[in-house]
Amino acid sequence: MAIHSPEHPVHPTDPTPTPTPVTVLGMGPMGRALAGALLAAGHPVTVWNRTPGRAAELVERGAAEAGSVRAAVGASPLVIVCVIDYAAADAIVRPAAAALRGRTLVNLTADTPDRARATAAWAAEHGVGYLDGSILTPATAIGTDAAVVIYSGPEERFAAHRSTLAALGGRSDHLGADPGRAAAFDVAALDFCWTAVSGYLHALALARAEGITAAQLLPYAQGIVELLGQVVPVYAERADADSHPGDVSNVTSVAAGIEHIVHASAARGLDTGVLDAALAVARRAIAEGRGRDDFSRLVDTVRVA
Amino acid sequence: MAIHSPEHPVHPTDPTPTPTPVTVLGMGPMGRALAGALLAAGHPVTVWNRTPGRAAELVERGAAEAGSVRAAVGASPLVIVCVIDYAAADAIVRPAAAALRGRTLVNLTADTPDRARATAAWAAEHGVGYLDGSILTPATAIGTDAAVVIYSGPEERFAAHRSTLAALGGRSDHLGADPGRAAAFDVAALDFCWTAVSGYLHALALARAEGITAAQLLPYAQGIVELLGQVVPVYAERADADSHPGDVSNVTSVAAGIEHIVHASAARGLDTGVLDAALAVARRAIAEGRGRDDFSRLVDTVRVA
Ligand SMILES: NC(=O)c1ccc[n+]([C@@H]2O[C@H](COP(=O)([O-])OP(=O)(O)OC[C@H]3O[C@@H](n4cnc5c(N)ncnc54)[C@H](OP(=O)(O)O)[C@@H]3O)[C@@H](O)[C@H]2O)c1
Ligand SMILES: NC(=O)c1ccc[n+]([C@@H]2O[C@H](COP(=O)([O-])OP(=O)(O)OC[C@H]3O[C@@H](n4cnc5c(N)ncnc54)[C@H](OP(=O)(O)O)[C@@H]3O)[C@@H](O)[C@H]2O)c1
Repeated sequence: MAIHSPEHPVHPTDPTPTPTPVTVLGMGPMGRALAGALLAAGHPVTVWNRTPGRAAELVERGAAEAGSVRAAVGASPLVIVCVIDYAAADAIVRPAAAALRGRTLVNLTADTPDRARATAAWAAEHGVGYLDGSILTPATAIGTDAAVVIYSGPEERFAAHRSTLAALGGRSDHLGADPGRAAAFDVAALDFCWTAVSGYLHALALARAEGITAAQLLPYAQGIVELLGQVVPVYAERADADSHPGDVSNVTSVAAGIEHIVHASAARGLDTGVLDAALAVARRAIAEGRGRDDFSRLVDTVRVA
Repeated sequence: MAIHSPEHPVHPTDPTPTPTPVTVLGMGPMGRALAGALLAAGHPVTVWNRTPGRAAELVERGAAEAGSVRAAVGASPLVIVCVIDYAAADAIVRPAAAALRGRTLVNLTADTPDRARATAAWAAEHGVGYLDGSILTPATAIGTDAAVVIYSGPEERFAAHRSTLAALGGRSDHLGADPGRAAAFDVAALDFCWTAVSGYLHALALARAEGITAAQLLPYAQGIVELLGQVVPVYAERADADSHPGDVSNVTSVAAGIEHIVHASAARGLDTGVLDAALAVARRAIAEGRGRDDFSRLVDTVRVA
């Protein structure tokens, strides 16, 4: 595996830019997808994973598997880390500070905005260029038009690597200089995503308990997705305008609806924790005199401190 | 207001069927929308509401406002009740059993399958024809192609009123003879709907706390709706096939993601009840040795009894 000096193209005099070598740390489904997309775009790719041997397919396609983080980092001016969380990412990159010095570290691990800011501060202290990013689409979307990857951190550093990072997917958005900003968008989007998916799985379980197959429920579940597509921009407007007219439906009516779901679920032996918690927020809104407002009012009620 | 005898068309010898008179009990946003769609389709419409005076616009358009439930019921062979829940619906229709005898009562109030079955049993005891239904779209969709209304109860009774009920919206599905079946589909679909909407409102609150406007989050929230559109049929297949391969993502990875959202939310003073409950289910799956399965495995884990 060739060792390149940090931040210098392989052939600085070549008129057409040589694809930048990239290192990917972390060979979970997402790390593998990232490395695969970079390989497909013609980049020399070096990979490393805590547990070796996860990258066989990538190695077959031309990737180099490094035996240590230090060696992996030394192979490329641009290093991507994508593991389960920042505790894992920090455990990987912090001991390699010296090797990372002068290179760019792009952290595509998901975590909180505060963790992203803390890792950015560590990187600054150690002379490591740093971009924080989040991936808003499944591993299967990486390298396709469907992929959405968001970044934050110094604008110039993003600009310098934009064309390389473009290999990862359809949409690469730089959201600002605050390194925590991509993570803030990410946790908000995933808040919606995983809560919704949890609700869907609960709905499938409730249907099943009532003798309804998932295939039978499917057209109505797809109708709900369509409704969500309509509600999402309307509630965004209401939230920004702080205006929640309850003329079509209101918190009290929806709370009654959620109560039915709780009763029906409890009667069939299902966990009602998520619904109970959603209902508690609605009841708090009613107790605060917001029962006749639209359900979108709960954007205020979920704030407790 | 003309009083028609139960279940007989106004002009039984007329070759083209005269639009059936319909009574709508309950003048919330949905009851008003139903009455409005029936008026638009040319039906004589009689309305009643516990609190009078909510139907002024409908009366202007030709509806008759009855002074009592009995009078309202007496005006039409087909009576629709649509109020906040079955406690309210029962309080309205049960004292009017004698007047309802021989007519058809269509209960479009939302509640649990068991409540629907109980009201159907009461109707059978009192010689009241009964269909139970649920409305899966907002009041604003009623009378348009977008409306979805589902029914259960005796097939013949649905067939007899199908053309009248068609006025309510685009799609009218009869789901079976069990009177609780429409409600079962309804609670399952709304389980997904209200949990997802709760998650979206929480996401907007988290974004706001991070200095991100709803308008800025919107494109990513719309991306999540697109993802849901892809996940919904895939998870339906996995649930029915009882197969949850964790090759693209797994419960452990998603649980780590939900933990980040909990931390980020708690750090900004938001209620974390819904997320805590979703995380508890994921952790139970991990404790049961399902951590490497796809998140869709939670369709089993949410069943606790
Ligand atoms: N998969 C998706 O579709 C998807 C979509 C959007 C975002 N993401 C995000 O992408 C990131 C990676 O996800 P993923 O699905 O590829 O994998 P994952 O299942 O979240 O994490 C597995 C990876 O983390 C490593 N790891 C875990 N604990 C570690 C530790 N203490 N020290 C070092 N390495 C550790 C694993 O190494 P070992 O192999 O040695 O265990 C493996 O490389 C996550 O933040 C995830 O939220 C994933
Ligand atoms: N609105 C929608 O977009 C929508 C969408 C799908 C399904 N639904 C379902 O449709 C049904 C009606 O919803 P809605 O939005 O029209 O109204 P709602 O806000 O759920 O309920 C208001 C109606 O219920 C009546 N009511 C409440 N308590 C009563 C009681 N104890 N006795 C008699 N009447 C009582 C009210 O009468 P007063 O005026 O006298 O208070 C009013 O007519 C609900 O089951 C709802 O879940 C609504």
